[in-house]
Amino acid sequence: MQPSSIVKTIDDIFHPSSIAVVGASQEESSFGHQYLQVLVESGYQGRLYPVNPREKEILGIRVYPSLNDIPGKVDYVICCINARLVLDLLAQCARKNVRAVHLFTGKLSETGDEKAYHLEEDIKKQARDLGINLIGPNCMGIYYPGERISFNHDLCMEPGSVGAIVQSGGLAGEIVRLSALRGVRFSKVVSYGNAADLSETDFLEYFLWDNATKIILMYLEGIKNGRRFFNVLRRVTQTKPVIVLKGGRSRAGIKSVASHTASIAGSINTWQVVLRQARAIQANSLNELIDLCVAFNYLPPITGKRVGVVGGGGGKSVLAGDEYEEAGLEVAPIPDEIMQLLEKKNPRVTRWLVNPVDVSILASLNIESAEILSLMARSHYYDLLSINSSEDSLFNKDEWINFLQSNMDEGIKIHREGLKPVIAVVGNPEIGISQLENYRWRALFRLREQLIREGIAVFSSSGQAAEAIRKLVDYYSYRESKGGL
Amino acid sequence: MQPSSIVKTIDDIFHPSSIAVVGASQEESSFGHQYLQVLVESGYQGRLYPVNPREKEILGIRVYPSLNDIPGKVDYVICCINARLVLDLLAQCARKNVRAVHLFTGKLSETGDEKAYHLEEDIKKQARDLGINLIGPNCMGIYYPGERISFNHDLCMEPGSVGAIVQSGGLAGEIVRLSALRGVRFSKVVSYGNAADLSETDFLEYFLWDNATKIILMYLEGIKNGRRFFNVLRRVTQTKPVIVLKGGRSRAGIKSVASHTASIAGSINTWQVVLRQARAIQANSLNELIDLCVAFNYLPPITGKRVGVVGGGGGKSVLAGDEYEEAGLEVAPIPDEIMQLLEKKNPRVTRWLVNPVDVSILASLNIESAEILSLMARSHYYDLLSINSSEDSLFNKDEWINFLQSNMDEGIKIHREGLKPVIAVVGNPEIGISQLENYRWRALFRLREQLIREGIAVFSSSGQAAEAIRKLVDYYSYRESKGGL
Repeated sequence: MQPSSIVKTIDDIFHPSSIAVVGASQEESSFGHQYLQVLVESGYQGRLYPVNPREKEILGIRVYPSLNDIPGKVDYVICCINARLVLDLLAQCARKNVRAVHLFTGKLSETGDEKAYHLEEDIKKQARDLGINLIGPNCMGIYYPGERISFNHDLCMEPGSVGAIVQSGGLAGEIVRLSALRGVRFSKVVSYGNAADLSETDFLEYFLWDNATKIILMYLEGIKNGRRFFNVLRRVTQTKPVIVLKGGRSRAGIKSVASHTASIAGSINTWQVVLRQARAIQANSLNELIDLCVAFNYLPPITGKRVGVVGGGGGKSVLAGDEYEEAGLEVAPIPDEIMQLLEKKNPRVTRWLVNPVDVSILASLNIESAEILSLMARSHYYDLLSINSSEDSLFNKDEWINFLQSNMDEGIKIHREGLKPVIAVVGNPEIGISQLENYRWRALFRLREQLIREGIAVFSSSGQAAEAIRKLVDYYSYRESKGGL
Repeated sequence: MQPSSIVKTIDDIFHPSSIAVVGASQEESSFGHQYLQVLVESGYQGRLYPVNPREKEILGIRVYPSLNDIPGKVDYVICCINARLVLDLLAQCARKNVRAVHLFTGKLSETGDEKAYHLEEDIKKQARDLGINLIGPNCMGIYYPGERISFNHDLCMEPGSVGAIVQSGGLAGEIVRLSALRGVRFSKVVSYGNAADLSETDFLEYFLWDNATKIILMYLEGIKNGRRFFNVLRRVTQTKPVIVLKGGRSRAGIKSVASHTASIAGSINTWQVVLRQARAIQANSLNELIDLCVAFNYLPPITGKRVGVVGGGGGKSVLAGDEYEEAGLEVAPIPDEIMQLLEKKNPRVTRWLVNPVDVSILASLNIESAEILSLMARSHYYDLLSINSSEDSLFNKDEWINFLQSNMDEGIKIHREGLKPVIAVVGNPEIGISQLENYRWRALFRLREQLIREGIAVFSSSGQAAEAIRKLVDYYSYRESKGGL
């Protein structure tokens, strides 16, 4: 099968040699100003043309009164002007041979106003007649670290392998920002709002063919063509995981998506069936979307469910066992062959030690957590290891920091040697500003960063880790059953 | 009904005029040393007697070779010596007229070793014969800010109204520490481990009569006497909320609780029925336990389910609507009377504005979020308001910080005036150590602390807030139906 023409169209959109920001302004609080500033800050290397008849220079860049006055070619227009001026801008775009326009401009069909609805219809029709592709209206457009194009301040500009298709502009930026903290880097992201022209399915098809994109995230409020969406989605999930968060699942949510992106939310039951049949991975919250993204970003295609858990005291181990098993994973008993080896050190082992491994029991038995972790890593009884930080201990500062770290170095070693997939659980307390100097929280922040730098998936609770991993295992088990791994 | 003698017994335990730490040591990594250090650090004002035949002085405090050598009265013994020495210590305690012993000492029945099991039985029998009450073995004992008694380093020493009964020692400290970050303060906490003598039910009965305790948290692995537990629990929940996290719900968890506190976990189905029938509030994870604690700590006895939600952009509002409604709350439509007032400002309001209130729409309509929040606070259509921080916006530093804060000041005002119960949702990104100076995260940490200082319940996601609030509403609705509010 060959990519359709839409793939080439979207690829061109992501590679503009020049961008015009129409409605750029000196007024710092205006979005036209913010867009220009973000492109300058992110280091976009193509030509940048602010357009505004009432300005001469913004951020040291020459401003053009109109598109027509720009001397060179314009590949991509970011439109920040009032909706009623858009039809005229499209006509100018046609004359300038602009093939792609991102309409940040909103106050269209999402307002529920009939005139605004018709204006959006007219914009859509005119763009089609003129052969112009639209992103939006009412959205943030594109983020592509490869070309240093961004849609929000201070986003990470290092490229990665996650592509995101996000109907909400605010969430698009938040997803990139929060995932970056977890070490996730993006190939390309699009926020596409009301989807008057280019839709979620067009971008999904694009990511199917985009070699840099290995994992796809979607935040969807509605879809334009259910049948095509299903067919493309089913096709994509055969080679790339697609993680979907659906907004508008409840009565209030359905009303909200209408006022947000003029979307028809549809019945959540239908959605769930469609997503399940197409083998998309469903997230139920923004936090879960990011946890799933972390799991798929770091972990290999695991198809077994047996987890070995090491770290934390007794209560924490009990709860980890519950949370892993309730999520559908198997906290597999420590096998006889490991027990026999440990028994030589201390005969009490067999009656006392269980998985999840409680580090207080290890201490009582004079066994290092690194030792049992190393044995588990070499055992075919486990498909995955979870190293949990031991925050819950009665030690003063220095001993506590050592204890916290106790099984982590061995986990990192196992990960580096590729003996077994490893994930980590490090708590994320809800601190206040006056707690920033506290050594405990700093130790957790340091540990998390260290693990992420090693390329380990870090979660803030066993429950969250367990849910994400089980969905990953389900997905890859399906792929394996189809011979597609 | 009068309190039973156990209440007086436990109250005496919490008010010792002197404490002996048996097994105190110069060796910093020993628990005997840690216990003594924690009592000194926390500022315990009674007499403190380290006991160890091989030491002269620890942390500047005179050490006694044995209990018998202590000149004064000893009210409470913290025992950190080896299990095989405990029977002899109990005999000494009897001679010294000590009425309460906390056995930090472990390696007893939880090890699964038959000899250790019998030793624990002997300890229990001997204590009973000698009229000595035991806490433990294998636990952290008591934390009581009122007497500046603590069981872990750096715990907050400000007293509050939450009592906690925690079978796990590690979790006991973590619960106090993590809850303190959320502004929760404790009346008294006990970690009671294997519960050879004093049990979860004894402490529950104590908290029923303890006037300082308004809310009770429990982390339970097993129970000693199911019938008595149920009867006491049912009685307590008629006047005080009891939030229960059960550890050992799964196959792995059940094995873990045996090795942790020698508890028989019991069937989780039976537990759920018992807890539901007794009207306890069930938590499914440590995070949920703390969220519930925050909800009950700050909120009045709300019995209505209609929430008004303000803050955050479109996608965030959609998801908040979904999460509140999926939890069983009602995101009630904005009533006509408010719509009519707002329509005078902008006729587009009625077709566009919904609850949850998207701040981007407000900005487009030139309506301040404070204005709509104030109207909602005065409307009888809402039982509760949720103010959500607006992290998801395209603004640079200064404007972003203002935007983040936009509806917060009004929320605080409404809370101060007592117009309506208010909760807040402020994100809790999983930051690494190199992100500590980042203005975004600092602004969130500052905002969280400000809200908590005002006495507002802060949650890190709408989903978590919604679950906690719905359980609170269910509990108080039950109390109201019984005429007990």
